[in-house]
Amino acid sequence: MNADNRDKPRCHCAVFGVFGHPAAAQFTYYGLLAQQHRGQEGSGIVTSQFDPKINRHRFHVHKDFGLVTEIYRDEKLLTETLRGSMAVGHNRYSTAGAADNRLNIQPLTVIYKNGNLAVAHNGNLTNFKQIRKELQEEGTIFQTTSDTEVILHLIARSKKKDQIDQIRDALSRIQGAFSLVIMTDDKLIAARDQSGFRPLALGRKTNATPDGGLAFFIASETVGFDIIDAEYVRDIEPGEIVVIDRESTKTGTVKSLRIHDRKEKPHHCIFEYIYFSRPDSHIFGHSVDKVRRKLGKNLAKTKPVHPKDTGDKVIVINVPDSSNTATMGFVQETNKHGGSVKLEIGLIRSHYIGRTFIQPKQDVRENKVKTKFNTVKGVLKDNVVVIVDDSIVRGTTSKQLVQLVKQAGPKEVHFRVTSPPIKFPCHYGMDFPTPNELVANQCNGDVKKIGDELGVDSLEYLEIGDLLDSVPQENGANYCTACFSGTYPIPIDSNQTKDENEA
Amino acid sequence: MNADNRDKPRCHCAVFGVFGHPAAAQFTYYGLLAQQHRGQEGSGIVTSQFDPKINRHRFHVHKDFGLVTEIYRDEKLLTETLRGSMAVGHNRYSTAGAADNRLNIQPLTVIYKNGNLAVAHNGNLTNFKQIRKELQEEGTIFQTTSDTEVILHLIARSKKKDQIDQIRDALSRIQGAFSLVIMTDDKLIAARDQSGFRPLALGRKTNATPDGGLAFFIASETVGFDIIDAEYVRDIEPGEIVVIDRESTKTGTVKSLRIHDRKEKPHHCIFEYIYFSRPDSHIFGHSVDKVRRKLGKNLAKTKPVHPKDTGDKVIVINVPDSSNTATMGFVQETNKHGGSVKLEIGLIRSHYIGRTFIQPKQDVRENKVKTKFNTVKGVLKDNVVVIVDDSIVRGTTSKQLVQLVKQAGPKEVHFRVTSPPIKFPCHYGMDFPTPNELVANQCNGDVKKIGDELGVDSLEYLEIGDLLDSVPQENGANYCTACFSGTYPIPIDSNQTKDENEA
Amino acid sequence: MNADNRDKPRCHCAVFGVFGHPAAAQFTYYGLLAQQHRGQEGSGIVTSQFDPKINRHRFHVHKDFGLVTEIYRDEKLLTETLRGSMAVGHNRYSTAGAADNRLNIQPLTVIYKNGNLAVAHNGNLTNFKQIRKELQEEGTIFQTTSDTEVILHLIARSKKKDQIDQIRDALSRIQGAFSLVIMTDDKLIAARDQSGFRPLALGRKTNATPDGGLAFFIASETVGFDIIDAEYVRDIEPGEIVVIDRESTKTGTVKSLRIHDRKEKPHHCIFEYIYFSRPDSHIFGHSVDKVRRKLGKNLAKTKPVHPKDTGDKVIVINVPDSSNTATMGFVQETNKHGGSVKLEIGLIRSHYIGRTFIQPKQDVRENKVKTKFNTVKGVLKDNVVVIVDDSIVRGTTSKQLVQLVKQAGPKEVHFRVTSPPIKFPCHYGMDFPTPNELVANQCNGDVKKIGDELGVDSLEYLEIGDLLDSVPQENGANYCTACFSGTYPIPIDSNQTKDENEA
Amino acid sequence: MNADNRDKPRCHCAVFGVFGHPAAAQFTYYGLLAQQHRGQEGSGIVTSQFDPKINRHRFHVHKDFGLVTEIYRDEKLLTETLRGSMAVGHNRYSTAGAADNRLNIQPLTVIYKNGNLAVAHNGNLTNFKQIRKELQEEGTIFQTTSDTEVILHLIARSKKKDQIDQIRDALSRIQGAFSLVIMTDDKLIAARDQSGFRPLALGRKTNATPDGGLAFFIASETVGFDIIDAEYVRDIEPGEIVVIDRESTKTGTVKSLRIHDRKEKPHHCIFEYIYFSRPDSHIFGHSVDKVRRKLGKNLAKTKPVHPKDTGDKVIVINVPDSSNTATMGFVQETNKHGGSVKLEIGLIRSHYIGRTFIQPKQDVRENKVKTKFNTVKGVLKDNVVVIVDDSIVRGTTSKQLVQLVKQAGPKEVHFRVTSPPIKFPCHYGMDFPTPNELVANQCNGDVKKIGDELGVDSLEYLEIGDLLDSVPQENGANYCTACFSGTYPIPIDSNQTKDENEA
Repeated sequence: MNADNRDKPRCHCAVFGVFGHPAAAQFTYYGLLAQQHRGQEGSGIVTSQFDPKINRHRFHVHKDFGLVTEIYRDEKLLTETLRGSMAVGHNRYSTAGAADNRLNIQPLTVIYKNGNLAVAHNGNLTNFKQIRKELQEEGTIFQTTSDTEVILHLIARSKKKDQIDQIRDALSRIQGAFSLVIMTDDKLIAARDQSGFRPLALGRKTNATPDGGLAFFIASETVGFDIIDAEYVRDIEPGEIVVIDRESTKTGTVKSLRIHDRKEKPHHCIFEYIYFSRPDSHIFGHSVDKVRRKLGKNLAKTKPVHPKDTGDKVIVINVPDSSNTATMGFVQETNKHGGSVKLEIGLIRSHYIGRTFIQPKQDVRENKVKTKFNTVKGVLKDNVVVIVDDSIVRGTTSKQLVQLVKQAGPKEVHFRVTSPPIKFPCHYGMDFPTPNELVANQCNGDVKKIGDELGVDSLEYLEIGDLLDSVPQENGANYCTACFSGTYPIPIDSNQTKDENEA
Repeated sequence: MNADNRDKPRCHCAVFGVFGHPAAAQFTYYGLLAQQHRGQEGSGIVTSQFDPKINRHRFHVHKDFGLVTEIYRDEKLLTETLRGSMAVGHNRYSTAGAADNRLNIQPLTVIYKNGNLAVAHNGNLTNFKQIRKELQEEGTIFQTTSDTEVILHLIARSKKKDQIDQIRDALSRIQGAFSLVIMTDDKLIAARDQSGFRPLALGRKTNATPDGGLAFFIASETVGFDIIDAEYVRDIEPGEIVVIDRESTKTGTVKSLRIHDRKEKPHHCIFEYIYFSRPDSHIFGHSVDKVRRKLGKNLAKTKPVHPKDTGDKVIVINVPDSSNTATMGFVQETNKHGGSVKLEIGLIRSHYIGRTFIQPKQDVRENKVKTKFNTVKGVLKDNVVVIVDDSIVRGTTSKQLVQLVKQAGPKEVHFRVTSPPIKFPCHYGMDFPTPNELVANQCNGDVKKIGDELGVDSLEYLEIGDLLDSVPQENGANYCTACFSGTYPIPIDSNQTKDENEA
Repeated sequence: MNADNRDKPRCHCAVFGVFGHPAAAQFTYYGLLAQQHRGQEGSGIVTSQFDPKINRHRFHVHKDFGLVTEIYRDEKLLTETLRGSMAVGHNRYSTAGAADNRLNIQPLTVIYKNGNLAVAHNGNLTNFKQIRKELQEEGTIFQTTSDTEVILHLIARSKKKDQIDQIRDALSRIQGAFSLVIMTDDKLIAARDQSGFRPLALGRKTNATPDGGLAFFIASETVGFDIIDAEYVRDIEPGEIVVIDRESTKTGTVKSLRIHDRKEKPHHCIFEYIYFSRPDSHIFGHSVDKVRRKLGKNLAKTKPVHPKDTGDKVIVINVPDSSNTATMGFVQETNKHGGSVKLEIGLIRSHYIGRTFIQPKQDVRENKVKTKFNTVKGVLKDNVVVIVDDSIVRGTTSKQLVQLVKQAGPKEVHFRVTSPPIKFPCHYGMDFPTPNELVANQCNGDVKKIGDELGVDSLEYLEIGDLLDSVPQENGANYCTACFSGTYPIPIDSNQTKDENEA
Repeated sequence: MNADNRDKPRCHCAVFGVFGHPAAAQFTYYGLLAQQHRGQEGSGIVTSQFDPKINRHRFHVHKDFGLVTEIYRDEKLLTETLRGSMAVGHNRYSTAGAADNRLNIQPLTVIYKNGNLAVAHNGNLTNFKQIRKELQEEGTIFQTTSDTEVILHLIARSKKKDQIDQIRDALSRIQGAFSLVIMTDDKLIAARDQSGFRPLALGRKTNATPDGGLAFFIASETVGFDIIDAEYVRDIEPGEIVVIDRESTKTGTVKSLRIHDRKEKPHHCIFEYIYFSRPDSHIFGHSVDKVRRKLGKNLAKTKPVHPKDTGDKVIVINVPDSSNTATMGFVQETNKHGGSVKLEIGLIRSHYIGRTFIQPKQDVRENKVKTKFNTVKGVLKDNVVVIVDDSIVRGTTSKQLVQLVKQAGPKEVHFRVTSPPIKFPCHYGMDFPTPNELVANQCNGDVKKIGDELGVDSLEYLEIGDLLDSVPQENGANYCTACFSGTYPIPIDSNQTKDENEA
């Protein structure tokens, strides 16, 4: 587990797809690299190439545990092994499925009656245990415990003749959160659940190939397009299936159909804005940076800091890099209304703590967070310090961070959080610790008590109303706030407890 | 590819199984190590362990490319990861299924309605393409191109309720060569095709566990029992299914049923005696060493060497280590009938050429076989030299070997082979080069011409009749000699050409 | 080479030392981890342990190429292999000595008449070629081409009896930049050249051991103390030798002597303040953060930005993370004097580009800097953008960064640098490209021309006088600015050209 | 440690040298591969190449722990990195110097006043501690505890001007066993101690290069020449220094000088004939195969087997592969004199137990030797079995081997050894366990008692007189038998105990 996210909810996965470029694997490599923050446990790329010798398409696969830069260290993988002008890629955190089973690394690939099939999935299906049970009863075998595998079976078992119809058929049966990229022998399909829980965007690049051709791209976040100079076209809509084929590269348009005829209200994951997505991404049609700044502003408005002695110098510090933007919003808003606080860099974060960093068991230090953070003492000493962070999960890292700050000798320490207390599990793709490990639950939601636990002079969270006020609301936007509120927009399969069987 | 077998047919695979010992993984490790010669490309071990937390069995899996000693180098794998008192293991060469696809490494494991399932397979199914096609039409997806995967699907799709019935149902549908070890959550099943192409034996060990318990073992060759001090009980019979469960460890007996009601004539692979199996194994109920010695004797009887000058000293040399035993038989028989030839060690073989030995592309040497063999010059010089080998496939290594021997200055060089010319492909589990790469085909079966190609003074093969005369014939023993005769005892699926799709 | 520093001067090395704690290796591990930014090519730890069996001390060594987290991934190295209560550690960039020669990884260790000896060196000796030549004439052999090796020979060849006298004798002969940690069997010695080019600090920790003992530490930067909760005591003074032995842990004091009797004016490397050191470190007795902020302020004062249209919104962006602090200073100072610029996060930096990141040779992208940086488009669009950076070396990265910013559609782009143009090589431990690769030289120091090369509306550097005005001047502080001015405070050995022999 | 030699004395090292071929590294690779049996812990190759850019020679080095095939797995090492037409290589077992210190891997390379120097050493110096002490007193530092390092210092500190004189000067000061290959910038030097303890041979190859050039080679054993089709010219004589330079490739001759003016009686290591060398090598001017066969014959003559019941069938088995040749001699001699024993293959050895094979700590088996050996039961059962082996060291493996054979049900088991009991340590390059670990010492040399310990019906060793009678004696040949007799031909440095300091 990455030290980086030890006390943060873990998002599960980034997807990426390419259609129409002979260097599809390379584009996917960069697209996954730019989305590394969404999944650091494993990664895979699958390409499709027509092989005239066998007169059909061949899928080339490379998957492994680790970071993108580690997995594709041998550049021949990208330039020689993973040939073909279509590709699908995936970075993963485990959600359903055991983390250490190599078979769970996506994209999953199979052969069925209509050819090869690869699937990359971001999200979490809420009815997959029920479907899996039904399929098993019918004689189906499973390689993994992953929810994604049922999608492949449903496609293969569809009675429809046409492949796109088979896919639509399959997707109409699954519920929950899914942003998918599916690759057949000669088509790239992007699909998103009715609620649009997770982001999914369409990009393209003109004059991509030597002969001036057009290439299409699919990514979870638009930073996947930026790194390869592709342009963002639009989001895949909730409930939409987008089909990209050779025709698309000629007409410049993609085919669009709907999973279900009915449309429903979306339920975008609000945590994507709070923490998951990169600030330089556009998700759900909006700039993350902008939203995150507004979170800081609304927090400043509603939960200002009142130092005991009004004459004291008040400095506001970010927790790099996740609360950088929100902290700037907090400071601007405070000062706009007559406040006089100063933005400071009070915490320095080391970026050399890699994914596999291990602290020796007989460790000599008390405060483990020092491996990652250090204070700029001159900045903190004798001042009233306000720490702005995006969220508190277990509370352990926040507590150690407060201890670290206090060692620098501030007069007071205040903690402000740009989201409400997290109290409920997510069933749509985030990986929180079990509810009783959440500090908000341990303290029965008593914010004062949580503050005492952290050892701060004051602690305040953004209220849920102010959170909703901070995110875009136009055009029918609507959000899932289940981890704060416990209100789940899509019903959960009662068997949907964590499945631990590795095989 | 192992340098060792560059010019030999490659057998495909060893299987091993354990029931009834808490250190099942360790036993499997040794059982696979002793059978390393049957497959050096990859290896896997799967164990089954009851997990009270989830109230069901868990399968633990470790598989990788490489040799057994490389794959399980971390001893924790054997003592901590692969827990459980049942295990199934596999060493592989690729036959069906692309060699470099990690998913093809066996045992294959899946989850289906009745629990976990692991399968290790030695052999080659002759009707799997037909079955795969049917299954695909019914909506089944395939992870690999391996013939073994269809067995799993057939078990899962059986309409039978009882698991053993499901297995019997599945096995009754497949044809060709299969020596199988199947592990369910709590049973170990061994099964062998009607023809008994490949060997498969049952072993046991009394007082195996601290509390005096009985443990059962399954192995391709009995050397797998020797290394762990287990005793060989009997062969799994052609067409037999043996079921080992908790009951067996109490009663000391295993359940036996038949795949089909009818019995058929066996067709043991005669090449197992000629080259594949270790000389210290018992297969098809007989000592390989004994048979191999008889091959040498019959060769000496029927194809003696006549030096041009009868006064010359005649020495006979083996090609270490594959023709060691046959060469001794050849010498004994020759001298018994008044001949006067001397057994000598004329070729020294280096055992430091590992599995992955690579000769630099701009290699500085002409005779590549020198990496593996060197001559003892004093022994060969000025003498009439007879080289006894077990088989000739492509002929390239034999030719280089002859050149090497001739550099040592012998008066004449004669070549004797303890099997007939190989002219036909094997569809039951051996991996020969394509027919037109076989030197016997290149020379249209003209033995004189092959001898000229090798550069020897005389070349003789054992005749097929004399071959059959060398192998045990009692108790209804019967052999497949298709690679020599072209007569295939089991019909071949017409689609059964090499499938190269990796996915 | 770390992508991070591709267009930055590379500092060479961090040193660390521990005396008086049984977990010395663990402390060193953290001390090196906190100083990873000073050297990412290789790292080593040497500990000293008394072995009663041989009645003398044993040195335990582990060194390798790579990052600290990679090299000591096996925690047994720290807790079992590297035993002893004294340790010396080193992170390296190559300066003298070929980068890829494993023997050059420090600490260097040897055995000589008085026991074991280990040396870790940050800096560059200016007369080592002359000394090496003399030593070779006397029959000395060299394992490496590193300047550090001569120090070991000089100690061993000293005519003095006492070990500390031998070390003083040796240090009195070398010239140039050296911050050293030397470990003998039972003493830890820290020493710094007369000019004090590179930082070197003394730390300690009370109640460090279970029995309340005192432990001493040596580090290049004080962040090495922070991570292990040790306190910063003072700097090793220019020209000082500090000796720590068992006595020190009882008295709480260290012995101090001088290399030469005369004191000289220091010449602290001013680039340590501009770029090398971490902002949370104290070096040369002062907070780097404070100095770096002042650099930004002085730049704002002397080189303000004048947008063409005064009504335009002006935003100032940092280049994360190296110019974060200076940018804040720049903005504060500008607004203090009536300016109205806004600090923004306009560039997002990816921290997943590891040390060994390789871009495929047939790379599909034009702007390589996109792997590392992306823009927050909404922030930049239509605004006047001021980029504040710490230095420009080759200019290639800066140019690509400007292109990247311009793609986001700003109205104007201005570039401000918190140091003067770099025109001269460093002979005291920094590793610049050759002079003709420096963009300041390519443009003959014509700032307008450099700005055109970068493609900005205006470019300004901090003047050398304003640079000196930004750094602490009290207590006889004095700086080396040779890379800007060409004035070298210590004469350079005329043979001191890059030595490329690997052996 | 290789499982192969667990109970055998370990030889230390093979050397190899090439002069006059642009693919020198490749030849060295094969030369080391053929000599892998002499050292399996680590290997290194150093080449010399003139670099016109720096107008002097550059040494290219690659060294690592492991087998030759592992270390040079990347073929670019041989074809690109290790350029130059001269090379020196080394395989090692540790003798002096800690086994796990990477610095001890040879060839050692240094730079001194006359250029680069590389040394590869097979043997053990008996006065190196004394010389090291003297050198340290004069101010010399040591990187390793290896005896080889003193040779480099002695060369560098010689007062002679000419490099060959310096080398001769240095070699005249060292005592003990040394077969050396020394490479300077442009010369290859081979040298051998006065006693000629270890073998060292000169080879050459005409028409080696595209332009018909001549290349010279140096090897410990002649198998190093066979693998590359080079011809064996002659041995380096005891006390001789051979110098190969550009002149040699023109004239076809090498320069020869003597270390000392006086000649002395040689003391060839008799164990090279008994066990160390490959049977296909020529050493000390004779075929090892021939000698080893004579050892078997003399053993048969002097220590025949007398079964209790003269009517019993007596079979003689070898311990593959080390006693193969001697066993054939034993059988031939026995039958020649009216005996009637039969040579059989009773033990099968697995060659898949690699260098790093590890048996799990909680191993499930009792007889560990089963990992390596298995019996051919049908051959042994009910017969009188004679095991012929080359030597017994600790006795543990022999004992397990006897147990293994007895499990197969022989009527009697007799053990015959082609060398006398080993009772004394070797100071000239073999690595035995400490004297009290030798079974011959544990049983006070009482052969009957040793036989009881092994559990055999009779045990006999070859007498020392018969041993000497088996080896070539013409032309002043003379042997060291110290490990059997305790008579050391060269006095031993009293400090010469095992030095364990790793640094």
